[in-house]
Amino acid sequence: MGVLERVNSTDDVSALSRDELHALAAELRSEIIRVCSLGGGHLASSLGAVELTVALHHLYDTARDRIVWDVGHQTYGHKIITGRKDRIDTIRQPGGLAGFTTSSESPHDALTVGHASTSLAAALGMALARDARGDDYSIVAVIGDGALTGGMALAALNQIGHVKPKMTIVLNDNEMSISENVGALNTFMRSLQVQPWLHEVEAQGKRTLGQISQTLVDLGSRAKKAARRFFDPNSANPFHAMGVRYVGPIDGHDIDQLLYYLAHVQELSGPTMLHIVTKKGKGYKIAESDPIYWHGPPKFDASKPVAASKGYTWSSAFGDAACALSSADDRVWVITPAMREGSGLVAYSQKHPERYLDVGIAEDVAVTTAAGLALRGEKPIVAIYSTFLQRGFDQVIHDVCLENLDVVFAIDRAGLVGGDGMTHQGVYDLAYLRALPNMSVAMPKDVPEMRAMLKTALKLGGPKAVRWPRGKATPAPEAPVAAWEELTWGSWEVLKEGSRAFILALGPTVGYALQATADLPEVGVVNARFVKPLDEALLERLARRAEVLITAEDHVLMGGLGSAVAETLVDKGLRVPLHRLGIPDVHVPHGDPAAQHEAFGYGPRALRRTLEALGLAQPTLLEASD
Amino acid sequence: MGVLERVNSTDDVSALSRDELHALAAELRSEIIRVCSLGGGHLASSLGAVELTVALHHLYDTARDRIVWDVGHQTYGHKIITGRKDRIDTIRQPGGLAGFTTSSESPHDALTVGHASTSLAAALGMALARDARGDDYSIVAVIGDGALTGGMALAALNQIGHVKPKMTIVLNDNEMSISENVGALNTFMRSLQVQPWLHEVEAQGKRTLGQISQTLVDLGSRAKKAARRFFDPNSANPFHAMGVRYVGPIDGHDIDQLLYYLAHVQELSGPTMLHIVTKKGKGYKIAESDPIYWHGPPKFDASKPVAASKGYTWSSAFGDAACALSSADDRVWVITPAMREGSGLVAYSQKHPERYLDVGIAEDVAVTTAAGLALRGEKPIVAIYSTFLQRGFDQVIHDVCLENLDVVFAIDRAGLVGGDGMTHQGVYDLAYLRALPNMSVAMPKDVPEMRAMLKTALKLGGPKAVRWPRGKATPAPEAPVAAWEELTWGSWEVLKEGSRAFILALGPTVGYALQATADLPEVGVVNARFVKPLDEALLERLARRAEVLITAEDHVLMGGLGSAVAETLVDKGLRVPLHRLGIPDVHVPHGDPAAQHEAFGYGPRALRRTLEALGLAQPTLLEASD
Repeated sequence: MGVLERVNSTDDVSALSRDELHALAAELRSEIIRVCSLGGGHLASSLGAVELTVALHHLYDTARDRIVWDVGHQTYGHKIITGRKDRIDTIRQPGGLAGFTTSSESPHDALTVGHASTSLAAALGMALARDARGDDYSIVAVIGDGALTGGMALAALNQIGHVKPKMTIVLNDNEMSISENVGALNTFMRSLQVQPWLHEVEAQGKRTLGQISQTLVDLGSRAKKAARRFFDPNSANPFHAMGVRYVGPIDGHDIDQLLYYLAHVQELSGPTMLHIVTKKGKGYKIAESDPIYWHGPPKFDASKPVAASKGYTWSSAFGDAACALSSADDRVWVITPAMREGSGLVAYSQKHPERYLDVGIAEDVAVTTAAGLALRGEKPIVAIYSTFLQRGFDQVIHDVCLENLDVVFAIDRAGLVGGDGMTHQGVYDLAYLRALPNMSVAMPKDVPEMRAMLKTALKLGGPKAVRWPRGKATPAPEAPVAAWEELTWGSWEVLKEGSRAFILALGPTVGYALQATADLPEVGVVNARFVKPLDEALLERLARRAEVLITAEDHVLMGGLGSAVAETLVDKGLRVPLHRLGIPDVHVPHGDPAAQHEAFGYGPRALRRTLEALGLAQPTLLEASD
Repeated sequence: MGVLERVNSTDDVSALSRDELHALAAELRSEIIRVCSLGGGHLASSLGAVELTVALHHLYDTARDRIVWDVGHQTYGHKIITGRKDRIDTIRQPGGLAGFTTSSESPHDALTVGHASTSLAAALGMALARDARGDDYSIVAVIGDGALTGGMALAALNQIGHVKPKMTIVLNDNEMSISENVGALNTFMRSLQVQPWLHEVEAQGKRTLGQISQTLVDLGSRAKKAARRFFDPNSANPFHAMGVRYVGPIDGHDIDQLLYYLAHVQELSGPTMLHIVTKKGKGYKIAESDPIYWHGPPKFDASKPVAASKGYTWSSAFGDAACALSSADDRVWVITPAMREGSGLVAYSQKHPERYLDVGIAEDVAVTTAAGLALRGEKPIVAIYSTFLQRGFDQVIHDVCLENLDVVFAIDRAGLVGGDGMTHQGVYDLAYLRALPNMSVAMPKDVPEMRAMLKTALKLGGPKAVRWPRGKATPAPEAPVAAWEELTWGSWEVLKEGSRAFILALGPTVGYALQATADLPEVGVVNARFVKPLDEALLERLARRAEVLITAEDHVLMGGLGSAVAETLVDKGLRVPLHRLGIPDVHVPHGDPAAQHEAFGYGPRALRRTLEALGLAQPTLLEASD
């Protein structure tokens, strides 16, 4: 491990020779593969960015200059280089490094990220601050072609082209987001080919871009045409129209080209986009050939890498349900904002391509396109992660709820999500959805109930949100849609009777509550599966009977199930004591969700301790000594 | 009133001759001026769209075809034509027509709107539905150049260019949003000039666009060049790169040109953008010369129109405060998403142009650009309406709250907003903001308290939201920032002691509560100015002393102040009865806010009745008979 061993900071990278930089790239690549094989991680995108990482750290001092990585999952190499190589094995592990760039983790991480398309707006803010203070550090935003389909990135680009601060925008074009890319801009980018004559030019030594342009003109007609496209601010290029100088595309795995163009672009005033073409998974055959699986694989054997099944998950269950619902009713559609794999929709996209739409990384567009479909009598399902629905919040209100349109929100990754950490926690949706007139919100305890909720939601119409957690689910036997249960919308379910107390549980806490109370006949368990509308009649009966009620939810305490229950008890003058268990007012980092549920008091052991403290269970010797 | 008198539906417009269409346009223009002079309204944009409205309704049958007006405030003419002329005088008035297109108001209104940039995604959904059903109606989206700077519109365009459904996109380019337009695309659009040779072409009679193109080539070199630009899919045009055919620009006030191009574009497959250039306020001199004021003026004398001062408002107070704060601290910035006038920032933008940024209609970009500034040590204030902050919700969480950045949100139009109606109600922000770790939320009772909150928020750092209502404020004497009060963040204020009950009031309800209890020594009034953090210590003292607590807020009941108080009472085991007054779970239409406050129970008279019902006040004879 020759070079990497000597690299302990970005300064060390500046001092390296060309040969050493090439060696460093190779070593980083091996190290990234090793790290991801240990505990899983964002393998393919980090491999694709190795040469760019090396080139950027050779040219820039990230203690001072700002490299703003969009999404931030391609930064394993960056983290290794910037003083974190000794902790890189802890990445995404509880207590370890975050899987994304995180400004509170390192001064070398310019921005805390996880969601796509934010880098350009953040870089604009940084550039304004720099120029207002008369500073002269460099700002480089690195954005993928997928993230650039996000409206926020396009709008920010439009502003950058207007304000014209000096910055480099590296368009890291690997022809995909997490799923395959969609959208016309993508087609356009594909039409721009890496130019073979670039090497020829470079061979002539260092020159300014203007001189290169002239040189090219001297090279004859084919090169002349290519050069026009490469440098002419009037060529057919949407980035020009947005006021941003465009250079490229170049080969993003060629360190020499990268260094050459990055250095020259840095000399130019205003904003310049350098378009580089890279390959996700570069240098690791299996990842190159299936970059979707190897985007974020679980741990694997690096000497014999095999794609492993992730098992049956809530996402798989939704995908199966969506296929069945669409087969049973030809008005049912599924719309995803670039989360085909994550939302379990691969089979759906093949089985019902005519009623499947991937709108790219544009959650707002997903919601409003669904509204358009619903206005014409279709029954769209928006398949989205809880954390990403935050990006379509206004559209949920303005385009769906106002006119009570028939849109079902199939919300995946609700609750704490594990390794992706604080940027991806799906712990606000109950609070922000239940405030909205016409909206209702449900969470199933198991797969048959998920099917029942989706079926009933489609039948009833109106805006309906059904949410479920990330991770493993217990498969349910296949059954035709006609055989799926229909639910009374808004009805809770008493799973276990009690005489003194009831736990009102939601989703994963239903199982926890049953576990914690199995030997306690006095403590009942209710599947409080509708957070809106609440089952007020049942709640009132329970409140009149019980000594105490307990709510347990994998969601923030401010605004969730417990809050809705508190409102109802107070409004009805029901004075039963209520213990609300859920996530306190903190951002929750990456970790093991089960352990976090315990730490926040709604895991099964913690629930048991609460019951003990309330005198509803005998303390065990072991737990009493905790 | 010759022609308009005979027009009772869109069918009647189809039957009109060219001359009659011209006459209709003139009559519509007069009618729009008359209507707006009576009660105020969206004058300038409706005037600018008169010819387009006439042309579209001549060509399309809106009972069947879908015209999707972006924002929907330019549709007074559309409403008059589509069977609502007898009710047009009621527009924006309580119980009257909505000021925006509203699908529940008329089958001719394809989409309910109010917020910008949604039309393209909605039209995409409609087109997918149409094509899936094998229908053949037409879909026309009409979007302004301002709304097209919204990321959501750009992302939707990118999808439309990819999916390529047949539709016409009319780019109604009037060179401004509500404020002056910003952004590089705007500069680009300005570079495209209306082509004088169009008339020449048209004079040669009806042909397909392809034939026209050929004709132009025959016209000589200047026209040839212009024609290339007009029709060539490879010309330097960002819309081409996004996969959308582009035609234009043409004169949007020339009905003949409009009819000609709209009809021909309609014959083409896939999506086509027809770029029309119009003038806001067209045909009404005073509005043409000051389209920003005449965008949405209050009522005026149509025979002698004069711009009237809107008086001193909360927005003016904020603008003054922002000027003072920026003068006192050169790290303070103000960022607005295209709401310079509405947020009271005209003077600020002139006084502190170096620390002022209008990012266009891109609320997400506004929030994240502020995050970028804060990461570099600046102190940005995002000036935004409550209803529009919904569009930056994820950015508030992901880009500001996660890292506890120093961003102040100056939230205008919190609460019910009056004439703009249900699309613009600012009644969810307490619910969606207080759920977020690191965020806090305050609302002042008067202007000095607003100043104190802004000053204290900037001093303390971290994400801080300060919200105030739309409308008139009582001016406070000018004073240097150093003399402004500083608040203990999270402290409530007992304004009136009580022995039996307390009203916990917020913003406008503070005055209402004082009014309702002026003669009631037993009922206290508390300015519950911090919704997060709550003043838990004071709340606990009040709860232990009072027979009953009452919360009164201009916000939805699910998740607002009353919800936060209920959570706290329940969590602390405080059993005082709580009456929660606020907005129930319905979308509130346009109306008089004061009357709506009464209807929802938190206006002064309604509060008094609640106190009577609770035995805290004597019923008056008059009100007892209600």
